[in-house]
Amino acid sequence: MCRWLAYSGNPLQLETVLFNAKHSLIDQSLHSRLGHTTTNGDGFGIGWYGHPTDIPFRYRCIQPAWSDRNLREAARAIHAPMFVAHVRAATDTPSQETNCHPFRHGRWLFAHNGLVRNYPAVRRDLMVAIAPELFPSIEGSTDSEVLFFLALTFGLELAPVTALERMVAFVEETGRRHGVDEPLNMTVCATDGEQIVAARYSSERQSRSLFHNTSFRHLHELYPDDPRIAMAGQDAFLVLSEPLADLPGWWQEIPESTVMVARGGEIEQFPFEPQVA
Amino acid sequence: MCRWLAYSGNPLQLETVLFNAKHSLIDQSLHSRLGHTTTNGDGFGIGWYGHPTDIPFRYRCIQPAWSDRNLREAARAIHAPMFVAHVRAATDTPSQETNCHPFRHGRWLFAHNGLVRNYPAVRRDLMVAIAPELFPSIEGSTDSEVLFFLALTFGLELAPVTALERMVAFVEETGRRHGVDEPLNMTVCATDGEQIVAARYSSERQSRSLFHNTSFRHLHELYPDDPRIAMAGQDAFLVLSEPLADLPGWWQEIPESTVMVARGGEIEQFPFEPQVA
Amino acid sequence: MCRWLAYSGNPLQLETVLFNAKHSLIDQSLHSRLGHTTTNGDGFGIGWYGHPTDIPFRYRCIQPAWSDRNLREAARAIHAPMFVAHVRAATDTPSQETNCHPFRHGRWLFAHNGLVRNYPAVRRDLMVAIAPELFPSIEGSTDSEVLFFLALTFGLELAPVTALERMVAFVEETGRRHGVDEPLNMTVCATDGEQIVAARYSSERQSRSLFHNTSFRHLHELYPDDPRIAMAGQDAFLVLSEPLADLPGWWQEIPESTVMVARGGEIEQFPFEPQVA
Amino acid sequence: MCRWLAYSGNPLQLETVLFNAKHSLIDQSLHSRLGHTTTNGDGFGIGWYGHPTDIPFRYRCIQPAWSDRNLREAARAIHAPMFVAHVRAATDTPSQETNCHPFRHGRWLFAHNGLVRNYPAVRRDLMVAIAPELFPSIEGSTDSEVLFFLALTFGLELAPVTALERMVAFVEETGRRHGVDEPLNMTVCATDGEQIVAARYSSERQSRSLFHNTSFRHLHELYPDDPRIAMAGQDAFLVLSEPLADLPGWWQEIPESTVMVARGGEIEQFPFEPQVA
Repeated sequence: MCRWLAYSGNPLQLETVLFNAKHSLIDQSLHSRLGHTTTNGDGFGIGWYGHPTDIPFRYRCIQPAWSDRNLREAARAIHAPMFVAHVRAATDTPSQETNCHPFRHGRWLFAHNGLVRNYPAVRRDLMVAIAPELFPSIEGSTDSEVLFFLALTFGLELAPVTALERMVAFVEETGRRHGVDEPLNMTVCATDGEQIVAARYSSERQSRSLFHNTSFRHLHELYPDDPRIAMAGQDAFLVLSEPLADLPGWWQEIPESTVMVARGGEIEQFPFEPQVA
Repeated sequence: MCRWLAYSGNPLQLETVLFNAKHSLIDQSLHSRLGHTTTNGDGFGIGWYGHPTDIPFRYRCIQPAWSDRNLREAARAIHAPMFVAHVRAATDTPSQETNCHPFRHGRWLFAHNGLVRNYPAVRRDLMVAIAPELFPSIEGSTDSEVLFFLALTFGLELAPVTALERMVAFVEETGRRHGVDEPLNMTVCATDGEQIVAARYSSERQSRSLFHNTSFRHLHELYPDDPRIAMAGQDAFLVLSEPLADLPGWWQEIPESTVMVARGGEIEQFPFEPQVA
Repeated sequence: MCRWLAYSGNPLQLETVLFNAKHSLIDQSLHSRLGHTTTNGDGFGIGWYGHPTDIPFRYRCIQPAWSDRNLREAARAIHAPMFVAHVRAATDTPSQETNCHPFRHGRWLFAHNGLVRNYPAVRRDLMVAIAPELFPSIEGSTDSEVLFFLALTFGLELAPVTALERMVAFVEETGRRHGVDEPLNMTVCATDGEQIVAARYSSERQSRSLFHNTSFRHLHELYPDDPRIAMAGQDAFLVLSEPLADLPGWWQEIPESTVMVARGGEIEQFPFEPQVA
Repeated sequence: MCRWLAYSGNPLQLETVLFNAKHSLIDQSLHSRLGHTTTNGDGFGIGWYGHPTDIPFRYRCIQPAWSDRNLREAARAIHAPMFVAHVRAATDTPSQETNCHPFRHGRWLFAHNGLVRNYPAVRRDLMVAIAPELFPSIEGSTDSEVLFFLALTFGLELAPVTALERMVAFVEETGRRHGVDEPLNMTVCATDGEQIVAARYSSERQSRSLFHNTSFRHLHELYPDDPRIAMAGQDAFLVLSEPLADLPGWWQEIPESTVMVARGGEIEQFPFEPQVA
């Protein structure tokens, strides 16, 4: 179980949402309210974009986010128009940098909260389905990284929503073949620096929580004097496991079995439906 | 805020109390019930004795105890007649190995739960009072390590109870000189492989919790069929921040301002009274 | 490129060979003389047996061996009748605990020096050949761990020499299929607490160096006054990448394409010949 | 023993000098040519300035620089007009983040190569001389950090050259009082974002090596087609323990007992003379 957030908008200093917000992501690493586990202390990662069309940067570490001093420096140093941050609560896989999110391939970053149930039973079948040319890039041992490489195999770079739906169908089909009733639980985020795709889905239709901000345009009107809102541009988009602060009207829950796509200030929401490839 | 335990008795496999008990120390690192903080994820340490008169061994690490795989191995490998274990919740000092308890000097080990209030203000005066020949041995930056070296300066190796009482008086006097009202809060444990000295004291007389087992002789009669009790010898002594399990009659709280000394199967309890040297 | 050693004999304190010898393994981690790289600073591991028929213990860490203080403590604390130690120089895979040797499965430990050439190209084919019931146990991302699981797949626990020969034949055949001329270079050690199997082999017949001690019985006669020799029993067996000290007559190189088996004081040497399964 | 470099000029991507140069700093961490030790694998640090008058940023880690993946990312992400980088070879103090250079206080960064001889004997006297208001900021246990806080005590922020000269006189006087013949060996770098002060000095007048680039204006004429030179502006200044590449005329050794000050494109060189405060 983990917590993550993704931002796109005018360049924002990372510490704004990682440290300074009331119920910031780092605060969530120690005291999650909505998570399945309250402590997310098994490492963390941030990924950010300089120029949207370049390979994004990462900083990942197995220290708890709350005690890592380099993260505090990085969050102060980095201003970015798009970034992803993740705090990890390991299920059964080791606490190591290559198991920390976000995962990266080319311009794409990927973060996940949830799990593949009975992963040891299905791991081999899932890995074998990864495209052979992607296989050498697998570095860690988590289910999350394998979900990412499966999504890439199913076309994430070309049609991200469809690729995620195919990936989920494949994981569910594989799990059921191995006798797993509810094979997958996930909220995921995939981004290439130009768009953020965020999905909330689980086989049991009781997915981990996921929220996004309501329109900042609307918020600017609602709270004209709040500096936290003034700081964000009109088109800022934030999607995250748990709300950062308690202003009424600020956050909206993403419904069960739904995918959101944010690109160039436009946000759209679709039903998320597993598709057999 | 931290959690610790110390054991003396027949050689015991460390995993018994670190992992296998119901509310084990490692469980406490994630979910402390009585602690000031619920998460103790800023490193840990174990110290243990082979032969009582030799220098004890240590394993310390800045990983959270719950995710460190080497600790699991060590706890399975080590059987010892006396050991100390500690999980750390850092206050303001960095998460680094040299700040992990137990601290060691010659045959002595030392673990602490609590804090020196307004430590930055008094740190220099406390350090300057450490015996010059001990000064080069200071490795970390915590208040706890300085308490240990002060206790050594005040004669810990010769008269441990008195040395702790003098150390406390000196810390309180120094704190008050700097305008700190309640300078010190502590439960501490000091051991040389032959005795365990455990004290519970705070300037405000509201110290962190501290417990010890009631006589195992008594428990053997009370729970003749419980394998956890059968495993421990008649003279086993366990002192710890939080009880490990819920059997009625098993644990006894150490009163406020009290010090216990366990040596060779004998246990004695005295009032703890700060003494100006 | 790495350096390793394995010992069997009367219980020996690990620090004897890890730290105290003249050209000890830890010294080799900083200044290898015969290795392909002079620095082996990308982590280390030790594995040791308590009772020969139990699961062995491990301590692995990504710190350089020369600066890890816990290793120094462990080497002082552990006396074992059989152990394996390894210092790592990573080729292309990350510096993480799950990539540190020795690898373990049940009672077996495995250490490797060398490489699978063009590993990214052959990794998938090698992994797919691992027995499905072993697959979930793969934790890291190195070629070495995959060699171990392939050897287990080919029967390491029943017929270790044959299993290693089959594993090598399979790796060579797979490499050649992918156009790799000299697919494998290795010295390996596999042990189950009762026997040590050590092989030196490479596709190009120019394997990394490997040595073993000449008979300690012989050495006791040759150097009656040397305490290092007196300490080892008559049946002690040591096999290692690089000699520890310079006494003439002490070390003997294991020839190219050779496998040694040490068990119960008996040592035998056979030609190592890749076998298609 | 360590290696360091400091840069000021037009904003430069850190990887240019950390990774891409022929004998880059990271290469020096594995294979120093001129250093006292060839391996500098006990951690590293980088410090850089965004706006010259703000607090600089840092990234420090105890991993060897050559295997740290986050450093590779950081070096690609960071463009800075002034930065300091350091790779560490520990003498006797532990490998921990708070012992990694550069040290920081307000806008100042400090890096050191060399040592205070017989440091355990003089440590207490040196620390006691640190201004009480600076004392709480000491985090690590190295001689280097104490040199920095002594220099601050002696006025580094107001008159850096004089402060360094007073610091050295005080360390030498303290060492000699404790019977140390040649108390100090150093090359040091102190910077506040606007100037770089680099000194080479040792009690025995045989200091560690220190170089700076000859005028880039001159180099642009000398090598009009070299892209590495084209990249640097006319006023770029680089001072470092070991030359990065082999172009004749590029590097100039800083003489024994000399201090250089680079500020706003101007570079001056003075004799370095310890001054009793």
